[in-house]
Amino acid sequence: MPDRLDRYAYLGPPGTFSEAAARTLVPAPALPASLLPCPTIQAALAAVRDGSASHAVVPIESSVEGAVTVTLDELATGGELFIGAEILLPIAFALLARPGVTLAGVHRVGGHPQAEAQCRNWLTAHLPDASWQPVASNAAAAQQVAAGDLDAALAGAFAAGQYGLAVLAGDVHDRASAVTRFVVVTRPGPLPAPTGADRTSLAAFLAADHPGALMEILTEFAVRGVNLTRIESRPTGDALGRYWFCIDCEGHLDDARVGEVLMGLRRVCADVRFLGSYPRGDGGKTQVRPGTSDTEFAASAAWLARLRYGRI
Amino acid sequence: MPDRLDRYAYLGPPGTFSEAAARTLVPAPALPASLLPCPTIQAALAAVRDGSASHAVVPIESSVEGAVTVTLDELATGGELFIGAEILLPIAFALLARPGVTLAGVHRVGGHPQAEAQCRNWLTAHLPDASWQPVASNAAAAQQVAAGDLDAALAGAFAAGQYGLAVLAGDVHDRASAVTRFVVVTRPGPLPAPTGADRTSLAAFLAADHPGALMEILTEFAVRGVNLTRIESRPTGDALGRYWFCIDCEGHLDDARVGEVLMGLRRVCADVRFLGSYPRGDGGKTQVRPGTSDTEFAASAAWLARLRYGRI
Amino acid sequence: MPDRLDRYAYLGPPGTFSEAAARTLVPAPALPASLLPCPTIQAALAAVRDGSASHAVVPIESSVEGAVTVTLDELATGGELFIGAEILLPIAFALLARPGVTLAGVHRVGGHPQAEAQCRNWLTAHLPDASWQPVASNAAAAQQVAAGDLDAALAGAFAAGQYGLAVLAGDVHDRASAVTRFVVVTRPGPLPAPTGADRTSLAAFLAADHPGALMEILTEFAVRGVNLTRIESRPTGDALGRYWFCIDCEGHLDDARVGEVLMGLRRVCADVRFLGSYPRGDGGKTQVRPGTSDTEFAASAAWLARLRYGRI
Amino acid sequence: MPDRLDRYAYLGPPGTFSEAAARTLVPAPALPASLLPCPTIQAALAAVRDGSASHAVVPIESSVEGAVTVTLDELATGGELFIGAEILLPIAFALLARPGVTLAGVHRVGGHPQAEAQCRNWLTAHLPDASWQPVASNAAAAQQVAAGDLDAALAGAFAAGQYGLAVLAGDVHDRASAVTRFVVVTRPGPLPAPTGADRTSLAAFLAADHPGALMEILTEFAVRGVNLTRIESRPTGDALGRYWFCIDCEGHLDDARVGEVLMGLRRVCADVRFLGSYPRGDGGKTQVRPGTSDTEFAASAAWLARLRYGRI
Repeated sequence: MPDRLDRYAYLGPPGTFSEAAARTLVPAPALPASLLPCPTIQAALAAVRDGSASHAVVPIESSVEGAVTVTLDELATGGELFIGAEILLPIAFALLARPGVTLAGVHRVGGHPQAEAQCRNWLTAHLPDASWQPVASNAAAAQQVAAGDLDAALAGAFAAGQYGLAVLAGDVHDRASAVTRFVVVTRPGPLPAPTGADRTSLAAFLAADHPGALMEILTEFAVRGVNLTRIESRPTGDALGRYWFCIDCEGHLDDARVGEVLMGLRRVCADVRFLGSYPRGDGGKTQVRPGTSDTEFAASAAWLARLRYGRI
Repeated sequence: MPDRLDRYAYLGPPGTFSEAAARTLVPAPALPASLLPCPTIQAALAAVRDGSASHAVVPIESSVEGAVTVTLDELATGGELFIGAEILLPIAFALLARPGVTLAGVHRVGGHPQAEAQCRNWLTAHLPDASWQPVASNAAAAQQVAAGDLDAALAGAFAAGQYGLAVLAGDVHDRASAVTRFVVVTRPGPLPAPTGADRTSLAAFLAADHPGALMEILTEFAVRGVNLTRIESRPTGDALGRYWFCIDCEGHLDDARVGEVLMGLRRVCADVRFLGSYPRGDGGKTQVRPGTSDTEFAASAAWLARLRYGRI
Repeated sequence: MPDRLDRYAYLGPPGTFSEAAARTLVPAPALPASLLPCPTIQAALAAVRDGSASHAVVPIESSVEGAVTVTLDELATGGELFIGAEILLPIAFALLARPGVTLAGVHRVGGHPQAEAQCRNWLTAHLPDASWQPVASNAAAAQQVAAGDLDAALAGAFAAGQYGLAVLAGDVHDRASAVTRFVVVTRPGPLPAPTGADRTSLAAFLAADHPGALMEILTEFAVRGVNLTRIESRPTGDALGRYWFCIDCEGHLDDARVGEVLMGLRRVCADVRFLGSYPRGDGGKTQVRPGTSDTEFAASAAWLARLRYGRI
Repeated sequence: MPDRLDRYAYLGPPGTFSEAAARTLVPAPALPASLLPCPTIQAALAAVRDGSASHAVVPIESSVEGAVTVTLDELATGGELFIGAEILLPIAFALLARPGVTLAGVHRVGGHPQAEAQCRNWLTAHLPDASWQPVASNAAAAQQVAAGDLDAALAGAFAAGQYGLAVLAGDVHDRASAVTRFVVVTRPGPLPAPTGADRTSLAAFLAADHPGALMEILTEFAVRGVNLTRIESRPTGDALGRYWFCIDCEGHLDDARVGEVLMGLRRVCADVRFLGSYPRGDGGKTQVRPGTSDTEFAASAAWLARLRYGRI
């Protein structure tokens, strides 16, 4: 079943930014059979776990709204999955309506809650009297517009064609250059080979709540010259004041310094879950501080071995 | 207008957990005139800024869902406000329906998205076929149930009476002991006096993105023995990989060690916004490491003054 | 030549504290053939390097005077040697003179410069008008007293008999409980087995002089929970402001955490010389911080191996 | 008695490097009445304490031999004195003998023990059979040569004229570019004004021996961007393993960041003794990390004051 090997689950219906991200991975002839729209992020990830999809393409972070916490929580505490790639997708919102509708005719606007957050100023300026209806996805809002349940939807302009709608206004987002980072998730298996411009993601669960725990974790990275690119605290769910950390750092599991950081975290944390090593979508090269290259790690290990065993 | 001095804006309509939190502050005879329901958290905070309310009671953190990012973002980047108190409210969800309705008759359930997140297992087990409708607040969902637009709502049991509904099932949340932390927000002004069990909140905007920036910030706290109780990274909105930090620590602005930390942050950060010092809702006493009491700060300052000026 | 296998070089002539330290290692029947007095510390170490002695017993640190820098410099920059044991010797000085001489007849007193330093108050109080003559060792001063070149010598009371002198005054040192730490040095070879109460010594040469270099070195120890017991800075000899560090820490080369520290130092320093792992003379047990035992290092290494290779 | 105001005590007799250092401070017409030779470093410092000299010029550090521990110990634990200046003196040794004496006639060579250390290779090569006689100072050795008690002395070539000796061999030191750092010590009083290229010296006595104490001390400096230029551990004298630290750092007591470091040390240490702020002899400018200038300290203090008092 070759198609199952290359089926991408995403937060649907068709027309979402998630679909736009997934489409960057699929050659045109394989569309749309290779895409599997799912009602929620959880469902997209479950589709990978149960084998109905080979990959899930899910948002993990927005430059405007921050972490997509359901993705973080699922990756860290749900059935084990690996991140194998990332996609940085520029986010541009349009206001979609049925052909012929004008701004004056828009009384009810819908979209994903993040859409409202990213277009708030525009809405206030141009549709001050319209009511806002949160919907599970922007594309679902477009569907409701097509069905006549809403007057307009905030969504990517690419969704207009799919639902027979027109772009009533383009680029209605408040901040140019908004970007959402999607990750491509698979079942655990071989990692992508190191490229010299990789990112590693992990979840670190604190052993016990003591004041210096976060500092301790950061020091494990710093002492081996591994730069963090993102850190998110998330509640454990047990009580206020109990957290775990979702961390992205430069480098690859196969880098000696990253391996030593992971072992260090494993010893000082209650649990560490490795979430994947994969090429960075922003092309940033890994910075290697003097003394932390694989060659230097190998040389120091050889020296230690000579000290320990060479004198016998 | 004495009532304006004591009017509490909250995320309404009546029947929300926010209202339940606000009610803990208002003596019964003053109810309900002292409460001002608002459609959004932003609106509640705006009511304080424009003087239509003296206080806003807004959620800032849930033990299950984590940060309430809209609150963090508004406090850090909107018009300046101070946190003057915090309220820890246990969260218990019930399934509310019109009297006489049974589970078999529930096809559409609504509530705030966080309600769904906190009751997901129960819904899957008991209402596997019901569809989920996100609504701006749990109480608004209850309203819609009363109006016949939904079959059931997830909300606090206390909301049932307000909308003529019955509790179809109680304690439907997946995790016992869930707690939401609300903060009571006012216009800038005098702080509550130190109690020895205080919390200080602030927003730290990094000067420039360099690998050790977070470590640098944590060291400012650590070197003066000030314990962090929470740290959240939030995007600046400019680009992926650019963050600011919302930080809670032990102690009060008037504590010498907290003051020195703030000055240190101010020097190494692009900007620091002080968000308030207030008594902790959990009663935890501030831990004072040897060498960091006000007395010791004063003694060391006197010693330095003697060194600098005593020898002239 | 079994005696060469067990010949102990020391700073002579007979009657020095070094000899007293060496005697603690030699069974009485083997005395004095097993002892090799040398004119200087350098000569004692050279005797081990050239094979004329199996061990050298040399002072490395005094609780009163601090580091014995010639020992540090020789171990770090001379031909390679290992420390295999340490001896903590209580130091008690006596004033030795020819039989019949009284304090009134003492005009010239001699001894090692450290002897003068440790008995300064006594000398000022009891022999305010006597002149001080520095001599290469206390025992050599006793020899000169016997020869009539000096009137009295500061030395261990045990030296009196060897030179036909009398103890004119005992316990003339200013500070009770002075202790000198001697190390027993051999050619490089197998290390003493770990005992759980070991010390490891090393010399760390900085890669380049930058402000945080010492902090960097200390962090390599701290992050792996290895406690330092002593650190001495020594000039490289190149210029003012250029240093290397002689460091003692808890633990043994065969301890996983000590090995990882050594590798870390090797990577961040220009050079690291391992000087030995040996049982502590003070019996202090090595403190093992949670997360740093050999078992925990092995478990984290196995976990990393599963991550790296288990998924292929 | 104006001359008492300008009398410089030094380790004599005339002809020592200490005298050479002191002479750099005294205008020629005032010589030699402004110089007070003392038999020991302790005596030179005592002369300042009792008022018989205004200044003492004493060695504190050699680029070859390291710390001059008697100076460190006296400054840290003797009657309080301030360092007001430093002098870096290049050290060049000559072999001095009576006129007409040749190398073949040299059987006994004397000098300060550090002279032997710095000329050891030359002595081994050119006078392998000569015996070494330690003397309290190089100039005293020259005196003994003049008196016929020794055949030759290691000393500065400038000492030859003073004792009617000839330079038998010049530049006999093993390492070119040796430098000794002298400090000019006075009774406590006003400090030299800040120059932007200053050094501050202090002694830090640990509160209690715990593994991280040194790290704690270094962090007080690092967090405020103050660079250390030297750190020496010295025994407290109580027991092995108990130390205090003699520290030099960049900057002046009047610099805000240095003042805050001192206060921090005062709080975490059992005791801190300030030893002086004075212009650097090597001309190195103080490096000021962003966020640590006096202006930035003042701005952050003003900001804190507004937060604390501006809202009343």
